[in-house]
Amino acid sequence: MQAAPSRIEDWRTFSTDVTIAAATLGDGLVSVAWSDGRRSPFHFDWLRDTCSCPACVHAQTREQVFEIVDAPDALAVRGVQVGRDGALHVEWRDGHRSAWPPGWLRAHAYDDASRAERHAAQGRHVWSGDDPDAIAGFAWRDVMHDDAALRAWLGALQRTGLTLVEGVPPERGRVDEIARRVGLVRETNFGALFDVESKPRPDSNAYTSINLPPHTDLPTRELQPGVQFLHCLANDATGGDSIFIDGFALADALRDAYPDDFALLATTPFEFWNKSAASDYRCSAPVIGLNARREVIEVRHANFLRGPVDAPAASMPAIYRAYRRFLALAREPRLRVQRRLRAGDMWAFDNRRVLHARTEFDPSTGRRHLQGCYVDRDELLSRWRVLSRAATPTA
Amino acid sequence: MQAAPSRIEDWRTFSTDVTIAAATLGDGLVSVAWSDGRRSPFHFDWLRDTCSCPACVHAQTREQVFEIVDAPDALAVRGVQVGRDGALHVEWRDGHRSAWPPGWLRAHAYDDASRAERHAAQGRHVWSGDDPDAIAGFAWRDVMHDDAALRAWLGALQRTGLTLVEGVPPERGRVDEIARRVGLVRETNFGALFDVESKPRPDSNAYTSINLPPHTDLPTRELQPGVQFLHCLANDATGGDSIFIDGFALADALRDAYPDDFALLATTPFEFWNKSAASDYRCSAPVIGLNARREVIEVRHANFLRGPVDAPAASMPAIYRAYRRFLALAREPRLRVQRRLRAGDMWAFDNRRVLHARTEFDPSTGRRHLQGCYVDRDELLSRWRVLSRAATPTA
Repeated sequence: MQAAPSRIEDWRTFSTDVTIAAATLGDGLVSVAWSDGRRSPFHFDWLRDTCSCPACVHAQTREQVFEIVDAPDALAVRGVQVGRDGALHVEWRDGHRSAWPPGWLRAHAYDDASRAERHAAQGRHVWSGDDPDAIAGFAWRDVMHDDAALRAWLGALQRTGLTLVEGVPPERGRVDEIARRVGLVRETNFGALFDVESKPRPDSNAYTSINLPPHTDLPTRELQPGVQFLHCLANDATGGDSIFIDGFALADALRDAYPDDFALLATTPFEFWNKSAASDYRCSAPVIGLNARREVIEVRHANFLRGPVDAPAASMPAIYRAYRRFLALAREPRLRVQRRLRAGDMWAFDNRRVLHARTEFDPSTGRRHLQGCYVDRDELLSRWRVLSRAATPTA
Repeated sequence: MQAAPSRIEDWRTFSTDVTIAAATLGDGLVSVAWSDGRRSPFHFDWLRDTCSCPACVHAQTREQVFEIVDAPDALAVRGVQVGRDGALHVEWRDGHRSAWPPGWLRAHAYDDASRAERHAAQGRHVWSGDDPDAIAGFAWRDVMHDDAALRAWLGALQRTGLTLVEGVPPERGRVDEIARRVGLVRETNFGALFDVESKPRPDSNAYTSINLPPHTDLPTRELQPGVQFLHCLANDATGGDSIFIDGFALADALRDAYPDDFALLATTPFEFWNKSAASDYRCSAPVIGLNARREVIEVRHANFLRGPVDAPAASMPAIYRAYRRFLALAREPRLRVQRRLRAGDMWAFDNRRVLHARTEFDPSTGRRHLQGCYVDRDELLSRWRVLSRAATPTA
């Protein structure tokens, strides 16, 4: 595949395999015919808005200075042509000139076929309890020193949401070091780095030795932390296994068996509260989060961090029926992966997708100590995109 | 007003002015008649789920250990009564006993009247350009040392979204000190603390001297920073005034004049991109954010941080019509407050509500230097709730 650099406002490269065969003026739009037969409409407003000439985009910051209201409501075109450089060239009625390289234009086209291609599920792999591909493994030394290994790890985190990094020195602070390979560490009221162990005065069920049912961390915040890192320094007590459930599989199972319950949990805000003597965090949000295309993008769930359900009385029975079914599904072994961490292992998982749980342990039989921290999805994705710029041109 | 302490899982106090007059068994629910004539239904599932006995709630962490699926699907009640303590007492068929103090029960009742009372707009004050109450002023010394002043300031931030703190020593790092009075500082790729001044190699239009149109900071992140602090160390250049627009007023104006455009901007994801050599943040989200009750809770807007609109071709003309109208409204003087910061002044505003802008300045005429940082809404609200626990019992 041929690749060409982008325009000033981008840092990516774009494939030049498909070229512009013809560009014709339509009613308020330019119609582009591509060399592979596809046709893409580009409306005048969209074209004028994406002009990246030095008058429209700041040369140093690469950010737009032009606003579309600076152009007349009824935009008009004096001429359109495909240049010798293969780019689409437009001269506007007021004399302004704009150009778009074919690779960039193809990558941002919004005809139905181009949009479907762009939004195709990015290799998301939804897993159940007996799926051997549920957990991808990586070596600490590789992800710390090799950008290709780092990129592969971050890719797996996006695909399955659950990864294991092995060979991390079982020392305090190592988890923070790995997290910073990915991006900014997200601090919370439990600290930038938190210690999961049985504590004398626990302010969270996580800091006891009791069984911890499947949950996401900090559903009490508007934005739940994206990636959670849990590094095992010691795991010598009886019990204390790790359990994971793919929240996307759980949501799918609910939608398949009880579509009405799925719809209720995707629209009814639940109350998530985390209160202590010094803090009082509250978030009202549905258990299942959907994007504009109705795809599940998030699960928000910690039974032990809920406030009383606040919903119209008439819908209370249906809400509890749905929530009971959700909880019952989360207890089904078919969705659960159960593993035991050894000192030096580190879980890295998507905290907004993968529910994690812990079996009860007996602190009198040995030490159990995990260190953890968080990095947001924004950070993971930014790092992955930058690593991907050099690796592959955008199709 | 009389106040009584809450149950173990809460730290608030609740009014005891209204008492339980009677409690009767209905079909799958307990019907409570209050001393003021209101009636509230409480379904068995809701009651069993909110039991705070030591078997259901962990005594130290105050978090629930019981899950509603631990109780039979068809919950049944052996007896219900109002105790001598004024509380509602229920004995379940399996022998489990639960009790709810009247103040707590009333504060969480979900009959229509109780819900409407609880969700009534919390004193939100939407302002336009000529509103003298748009900007509430506070003294640095007070908010730093007096919790009542701090609470008043955080209350104003919730009501109008825009406040001015005066008398802050014009020294580096002071902004960080004030922000930590509110809560955890939110770090971004621009640093935990950022310097807004004209820089030789700017990676953002903010770091140039050009006119900066109305915007929210970091719309490129899933969660835009909640509160922005901008502390003026020097403002000696010609130009560089601050402009603010209440984004809620802007959204209201759009909804009033062009309801279809409002609906489009509240549902169509726009692309927000912030790319540099080392980072690549992208967020796809509507310009106007609504909650489950269709109230505007967020505006996401920075024209200079957008990627190409990615929407079906058929809706492109309507989307641009809506966006043009939104931009045109943001230019109308009637919505704008324009002020000039002096050294020692600090703006604190809701970055997800209030758009901020800056007029062009001439760096050859003097120094202009602001320091800024962010704190999320979660932090602001947590701090305010804790300060309010002592101040007022929850009605």
